[in-house]
Amino acid sequence: MSLNRIKFRKLQNKVASVEEAVMLIKNNMTVGSSGFTRAGDSKAVLPAIAKRAANEELKINLITGASLGQDTDGHLAENHALLKRLPFQVDPVMRKAINKGEFYFIDQHLSETAELLQNGHLPRIDVAVIEAAFITEDGGIVPTTSVGNSCTFAEQAETVIVEINTSVGEDVYGIHDICLSGKYPNKRPFLVNKVDDRIGQQAIYIPTEKIKAIVFTDIPDSPAAIAPPDEKTTAISEHILNFLKKEVAAGHLPKNLLPLQAGIGKVANAVLTGFINSDFENLVMYSEVLQDSTFDLIDSGKMTFASASSITVSEECFNRVFSNISKYKDKIVLRPQNISNAAEIIRRLGIIGLNTAIEFDIYGNVNSTHTGGINMMNGIGGSGDFARNAYLSIFVAQAASKNNTISHVVPMVSHHDHTEHDVDIIVTDQGLADLRGLAPRERAQVIIDKCVHPDYKAQMQDYFDRAKERGGHTPHLIEEALSWHTRLAQTGSMKKQQ
Amino acid sequence: MSLNRIKFRKLQNKVASVEEAVMLIKNNMTVGSSGFTRAGDSKAVLPAIAKRAANEELKINLITGASLGQDTDGHLAENHALLKRLPFQVDPVMRKAINKGEFYFIDQHLSETAELLQNGHLPRIDVAVIEAAFITEDGGIVPTTSVGNSCTFAEQAETVIVEINTSVGEDVYGIHDICLSGKYPNKRPFLVNKVDDRIGQQAIYIPTEKIKAIVFTDIPDSPAAIAPPDEKTTAISEHILNFLKKEVAAGHLPKNLLPLQAGIGKVANAVLTGFINSDFENLVMYSEVLQDSTFDLIDSGKMTFASASSITVSEECFNRVFSNISKYKDKIVLRPQNISNAAEIIRRLGIIGLNTAIEFDIYGNVNSTHTGGINMMNGIGGSGDFARNAYLSIFVAQAASKNNTISHVVPMVSHHDHTEHDVDIIVTDQGLADLRGLAPRERAQVIIDKCVHPDYKAQMQDYFDRAKERGGHTPHLIEEALSWHTRLAQTGSMKKQQ
Repeated sequence: MSLNRIKFRKLQNKVASVEEAVMLIKNNMTVGSSGFTRAGDSKAVLPAIAKRAANEELKINLITGASLGQDTDGHLAENHALLKRLPFQVDPVMRKAINKGEFYFIDQHLSETAELLQNGHLPRIDVAVIEAAFITEDGGIVPTTSVGNSCTFAEQAETVIVEINTSVGEDVYGIHDICLSGKYPNKRPFLVNKVDDRIGQQAIYIPTEKIKAIVFTDIPDSPAAIAPPDEKTTAISEHILNFLKKEVAAGHLPKNLLPLQAGIGKVANAVLTGFINSDFENLVMYSEVLQDSTFDLIDSGKMTFASASSITVSEECFNRVFSNISKYKDKIVLRPQNISNAAEIIRRLGIIGLNTAIEFDIYGNVNSTHTGGINMMNGIGGSGDFARNAYLSIFVAQAASKNNTISHVVPMVSHHDHTEHDVDIIVTDQGLADLRGLAPRERAQVIIDKCVHPDYKAQMQDYFDRAKERGGHTPHLIEEALSWHTRLAQTGSMKKQQ
Repeated sequence: MSLNRIKFRKLQNKVASVEEAVMLIKNNMTVGSSGFTRAGDSKAVLPAIAKRAANEELKINLITGASLGQDTDGHLAENHALLKRLPFQVDPVMRKAINKGEFYFIDQHLSETAELLQNGHLPRIDVAVIEAAFITEDGGIVPTTSVGNSCTFAEQAETVIVEINTSVGEDVYGIHDICLSGKYPNKRPFLVNKVDDRIGQQAIYIPTEKIKAIVFTDIPDSPAAIAPPDEKTTAISEHILNFLKKEVAAGHLPKNLLPLQAGIGKVANAVLTGFINSDFENLVMYSEVLQDSTFDLIDSGKMTFASASSITVSEECFNRVFSNISKYKDKIVLRPQNISNAAEIIRRLGIIGLNTAIEFDIYGNVNSTHTGGINMMNGIGGSGDFARNAYLSIFVAQAASKNNTISHVVPMVSHHDHTEHDVDIIVTDQGLADLRGLAPRERAQVIIDKCVHPDYKAQMQDYFDRAKERGGHTPHLIEEALSWHTRLAQTGSMKKQQ
C-alpha cells in the first residue's frame, strides 16, 4: 500500500481491504468495470466477486470496456456470478457457458455501450470498479493501461471503487485524454481532426464522495501472447502491403497512407510488422489497441503517433514502454472507447481498417463472431465501428483451415456481422479481392477467383453458376446457401462427397 | 425558355436544346444526375439518353441521389442504356432487369456515394446533370426540390449540364444548405448541432466554365402517391405512439421527443399523421425526405423544423407548399444526402429512426432489400445510416401478408441489411418488441410473443425451442433456418403442412 498514490488526502481514509470493498456489491447489481483487451482491468474486486459467488447467491450484470485478463471472466462464469455480461469477452470458459445459455451475453459495437448507458437503454451502473495509477491532488482518477468505458461508468455509478495498481508508475499521467460525450439534446462534436488532437482531461473527474473504497494491487496486466507470423499470415500481409503500395503509386493514397486501425491477432501483427521494412513513412494509427507492433513501428521511426483505448502488449514490450514512458508521451494517447471508435472521427480521419473475419461469403458479407452460425466466439468488438465508417474496410481470414475441412469463404455466412455494404477489400492467403465499385455478381466472381482455397474453387463456382441460372440481384440457391455449414456439422468437412 | 433564369449572363449562350445537350454524353461515360426520391430529377437529359439508346450503342454508369420519377429508370432499363446503376431505385421495370442480371446495380448506404466518389472508389463523374430553379448572378446553381448528391457530382464532373425547371419558382432560393464534405486528410466536422443549423451556401458553386449546356423544362416532379392508412398501418402506428408516450412518461424522452426520421411509405405516413392528434409538441425532423405528413405537422403547429435532402409530396401538397414557400423558409432546409444521412450528425442529434423492413428475424436482424433472399426490391436507402447511429432505431413490417401465406418474421432473414447490433425496436401490427438491453435468446422470445402473426406463433416457438435444445449464443437449426423461404417458393406458403 502506498498512501502517497492518493494525493487527494481526504480520500486516504477510504482505503479498504478487497474483502471489505467487494461487500459494496450486492446481488442483482450492475457493475461497470475498467478493462479493455486485458489492459487496466480489475485485478482485485472482480476476482473477489467470483470468490464470493462460489459461496453465496451473488449474481451481477457486468459491463466492461472489452475483454478482461487474469482469467477473471472464466472464474466469474464458473462460479455463476453473472446475470448478463457485455459488451465483449475472449475467455474460453466464459464462451462455453454463454453458448450453453448459462447466462446472457450481449455482443455490442464497442463504441455503443457508453452511449446506451447514457441514454438509459441499459441498466444504470450501481458500482463502478476502476483501476487507477493514482488519484491526483484535485481528486482525479488516473487510469492505467486502458480507458475503455471507465469515465462513463464512474460518472454514472453511485458507488465507485478505485483499485490503485502500483505495477503501473505514476508517470503514466498524461497519456490519457478523458472526455464524456455529453447528453441529448446537447451533444457536441468530438473535435478530433487529427489523430493527436486532444479534447479532454488527463484524469477522470467525478464527485470524490462517490469513491467509497480504494484498494491496492500490484498485479500486472495479463501479457499479450504474440503469435509469430506463419506462411498464411505472411501471405495475407504481403497481399495487403502490395495493395497499399499500388494505391500509393496510383495516387489514391499519400505515402504515409491514412490512419491505420488493426484488430488484435496474428494477421494484424504480421501486417503492422510488415510496415517496418516497407517504404511507408510517417504512419499514424487511430485504433482500439496499441500492440507490440505499434511500439515496434514507433521505435523504428516509421510511426509518428498512435491513438487507441488501451495498451495490450507482451511482458517485454510492457517493460520497454513503461520503463521509459516519457519517451512515448508525445506519441500516444489513450481515449474512451466511444471516442476511439466514434463513427464521426473514423469517417473524418479516413481510417484504413483491418479486421479479422471468421468467414465471409461470395457477396462480401462477414461473420466475425459465430462458429457454426450459433456459437459465440468473442464478439464483434470494434470491427463494425471501423468497417462502416472507414476509408478502406479490409477483412482478412485464412482461405481454409483444419486440414482444409473448413473453407472460410462460404456461399452465405452463417451469421452476419458486417453486410456487403460495409466491406471494401477481402483478403485470404490465396489473394486479395478489391470489391470497391462492384455489384454483387461481380464481387462473387472476384472473390471466387482471388480468395477461395483451391480445394473449394470448383465447388464454389458450381454453386454460383447454378445460382445465377435461377437469377436475382444477389443469386443464391436458398435451400443450399447454408449447406456447407450443415455438411461440416454432419460429415466433418465442408467438401462435397465426390 | 426564360433567359432571366440565367442571371449570370455569360452563361446565357450555353442554352441548348435537349438533343444538343444529350450529345455531350458518350458511350461508357459515368453520369451523375440530380434526383432524390422522385424530387428534382432530370426530366430532359436522362429521358433523352433512353431515347438515344433505343437507336444507338449508348451505355452509361448512372449515379443519382436516390430514386427518379417520370418512369425514367424504367425507360433507361428497357432501352439497355445502363452499365451500372447506383445507389437506389424503385422502378418496377428496372427492378426486373436488375434481377435478371441485365445490368449491374450497386445498393449503397445513401450517405456513402458522395464519399466514395471523393475517395476515388467509384468511377469519376464525366458529366453531371443538375436540375435547377435558376442560376444566380454570381453563377450559383440553385437546386429545385432535392439536393441529393448534386454538389458532389457538379464538383467532380468535367462537364455540367443544367436543366432549368420553370415549374419551380425562383423563390425556392434559400431552402438549400449546400456544403461539400472536404477531402482527406483535411476533412472537418459537419457542425450541425441542431436540426436547423446551417453550415453551407444557398447554391452550388463550381467554375462556371464547366457548365457546357443549359436546357429548359417545365415538367413537375412525379407526385408522391399517398397510401391512406389501413387497419395494419394504423395498428403499427398506435403501437409506436403508445411506446413513445410511455418513454416520455418514464422521463426517457422530452415531450418534444428527439428529432424524427421516417422512411417513405404507408407506415411512416400513418405514424407521422398520428402525431397531429397527439400530445407531442414542438417536434423536429432530421430525415431524408419531407413528405406530405411533414407539412401537415408543420401546418398544424406540431412541428417547428424539418431537415432533409428532398421534398417528395403529392400534387396537392406541392401546390400548398410552393405557392407559399416563404411561409416555410424558416422551417425547412434541404441538405446534401451525405449530410442529411451523416453518421456523426445522426448520432449527435439523437434521432428516432423509423424504417420499413421486408422481413426481420427472431434475433432482430433486418432484411430491407431482397425478396426471397435474391431479388432486389428498392435498395437499403438511408435505413442503415439511421439505424446504426440513431438514438432509437425502429423497424416496422406487417406480421403476415398475402392471405397470411408470408410471415414477415422468420427464423433467419434471407438477406441481412441491418444486424441485431443496430436494431432497438421491432413493430408489427401484432405488437411492439423492445429489444434494448436484451441478449439474443431474450430477444427471440419477446419477438415471438409480441410480433409474430398468430398463424405462425406455434411454428416459430417450436423452431426456437428446438434450436435452444441444440444450444448456442444465437440458437438456430442451421439446416432449417431458411426453410420458411424455401417452403414459400415450393408450396406458395411459409406455413408448415399439418
